[in-house]
Amino acid sequence: MQLVNHRFQLAARPVGLVQRSDFSYTEAPVADPKDGEVTVKVLYISLDPAMRGWMNDVKSYVPPVAIGEVMRAMAVGRIIASKDPKFQVGDHVTGIFGVQEYATVGTKGLTKVDPKAVPLPVYLSLLGATGMTAYFGLLDVGAAKAGDTVVVSGAGGAVGIAVGQIAKIKGCRTIGIAGGAAKCEYIVKELGFDAAIDYKSEDVKRALKTHAPKGIDVYFDNVGGEILEAALSNLARRARIVICGAISQYNNTTPPKGPTNYLALLVQRARMEGFVVFDYAERYGEAAREMVGWVAEGKLKSREEIVEGIQTFPDTFLKLFKGENTGKLLLKLAD
Amino acid sequence: MQLVNHRFQLAARPVGLVQRSDFSYTEAPVADPKDGEVTVKVLYISLDPAMRGWMNDVKSYVPPVAIGEVMRAMAVGRIIASKDPKFQVGDHVTGIFGVQEYATVGTKGLTKVDPKAVPLPVYLSLLGATGMTAYFGLLDVGAAKAGDTVVVSGAGGAVGIAVGQIAKIKGCRTIGIAGGAAKCEYIVKELGFDAAIDYKSEDVKRALKTHAPKGIDVYFDNVGGEILEAALSNLARRARIVICGAISQYNNTTPPKGPTNYLALLVQRARMEGFVVFDYAERYGEAAREMVGWVAEGKLKSREEIVEGIQTFPDTFLKLFKGENTGKLLLKLAD
Repeated sequence: MQLVNHRFQLAARPVGLVQRSDFSYTEAPVADPKDGEVTVKVLYISLDPAMRGWMNDVKSYVPPVAIGEVMRAMAVGRIIASKDPKFQVGDHVTGIFGVQEYATVGTKGLTKVDPKAVPLPVYLSLLGATGMTAYFGLLDVGAAKAGDTVVVSGAGGAVGIAVGQIAKIKGCRTIGIAGGAAKCEYIVKELGFDAAIDYKSEDVKRALKTHAPKGIDVYFDNVGGEILEAALSNLARRARIVICGAISQYNNTTPPKGPTNYLALLVQRARMEGFVVFDYAERYGEAAREMVGWVAEGKLKSREEIVEGIQTFPDTFLKLFKGENTGKLLLKLAD
Repeated sequence: MQLVNHRFQLAARPVGLVQRSDFSYTEAPVADPKDGEVTVKVLYISLDPAMRGWMNDVKSYVPPVAIGEVMRAMAVGRIIASKDPKFQVGDHVTGIFGVQEYATVGTKGLTKVDPKAVPLPVYLSLLGATGMTAYFGLLDVGAAKAGDTVVVSGAGGAVGIAVGQIAKIKGCRTIGIAGGAAKCEYIVKELGFDAAIDYKSEDVKRALKTHAPKGIDVYFDNVGGEILEAALSNLARRARIVICGAISQYNNTTPPKGPTNYLALLVQRARMEGFVVFDYAERYGEAAREMVGWVAEGKLKSREEIVEGIQTFPDTFLKLFKGENTGKLLLKLAD
């Protein structure tokens, strides 16, 4: 029996916000694995702001997705055919499987996961690149330590909720910047952030002055733009700004807005540093063990927003840029 | 006999480029020192881009100069009266004496210097805040090491020529960005920079690609603006950008231009860090000893551009912003 694969291929380079017509939705037979390959039935696909960057034809930390290529995405699935003795049919694995129902791939980038230990979606959120980004960005790049005032933007997003909770666990005063009352209430009441700032209704610069009167020690930036400037205006001496992303700028058709007050770095002897989580791959195990412990102790909560059906991909993906998701946005294809 | 002091006081907050009318030139009797004070006859005054920042009424790493206050400046002079047993008449000292002929000051911020060891102007250039800025900015903040490609802007200026020479001494490939053929020729032929880029006649971004084909490891920024952007576009992996100043932006009447391509920090896992040299005061001795050694070995050259007469101060100061000086700009008041 020949299985049929449905998939989204990149059809055009988006200009501004991604449109349905930037993808083609096609079907093709599922390829049989060759030696050293497996075929994975994809169960959950991770939707990440970074995917927008991969669609641009620019030099970056990974090559752009080519026109005609299946849209790149991280995912978790179950092996249905294997030509690698280290992987058995029935094993669950994470990897870069793309926005498709079946992926026939080499086993080099695969990681086995255990759905009995934690639910599969958590392997794409707290225990996936999302959680690793929060962990290493905050603790390694940001060097957050007990007593620091930590501010995170995109605080209701997948990375943001992890950053804020890890900061609390480490003894930091933690302030989240998020869009809308519901997200702000969620991060304070459910996740224990010390304060939330609703950028849609508040003057962020002034609110930061109120909530961080001694200045910000670590600013974890997911959004860029005016919120980055507001943080720069409120730095403590020797502050660290962690550049994780700039979702407010990804769909610009003009160059991103640079922070006009970057000389605050000089005045406050502060630094602004970028990172790419894949550089920490060798230390993922260490972070995962610590985070699984925090989850077991009830200190670290995962939250996923799961939308069903591969066909919804273009619309579901846009929720990220409209700020509609709280926590990790996932596409569910099958159980 | 009552000595008369001539001095420049800040009369108005400059808007854009400093004007003569932003200062008042006045005279007053020289005050006698009280206990713990000395009176210094000022011999050379250091003119620095940072002075422009001190004239603005904004929170910074030092308080602004008040209206009516003598314009703040570092200087070297000779003690002509002392009420502190640790300082004798005839001693030469450096300190913040201001733009005036005589300063009666507490001895806390004074450093004795020996005009027989090196000429007095050198205590304001290589052995003053200028040299310390280059030394600690490059080696401590920028963590430059042998084999690195180092780029410095404002390369013909006082800090720039020191940065480039120290980078060469440390075994770095060194590229200077300066304005005009004369400065470019000077830093390559006289100071041994590996290459120079004339921002007035060259496309800096393209020239950096040519001269630093493997990317920039350390970018020491004195100028900001478009040159900072050109450097950001040419970073090597794990590059360090040292934010020392932004002379291209100091006279803006609108907010400084922020680097629109700051996300290069993410792509290249790079950092941008500001510093204030005064934080290194306890280590000045260590740097001075090493630099004096390099001077003695002929590896590190000092260059001063000395203009005579306190009355010339407003016009001489403007040379910094017009890029007219090569090396350290000093005002000479007396021998």
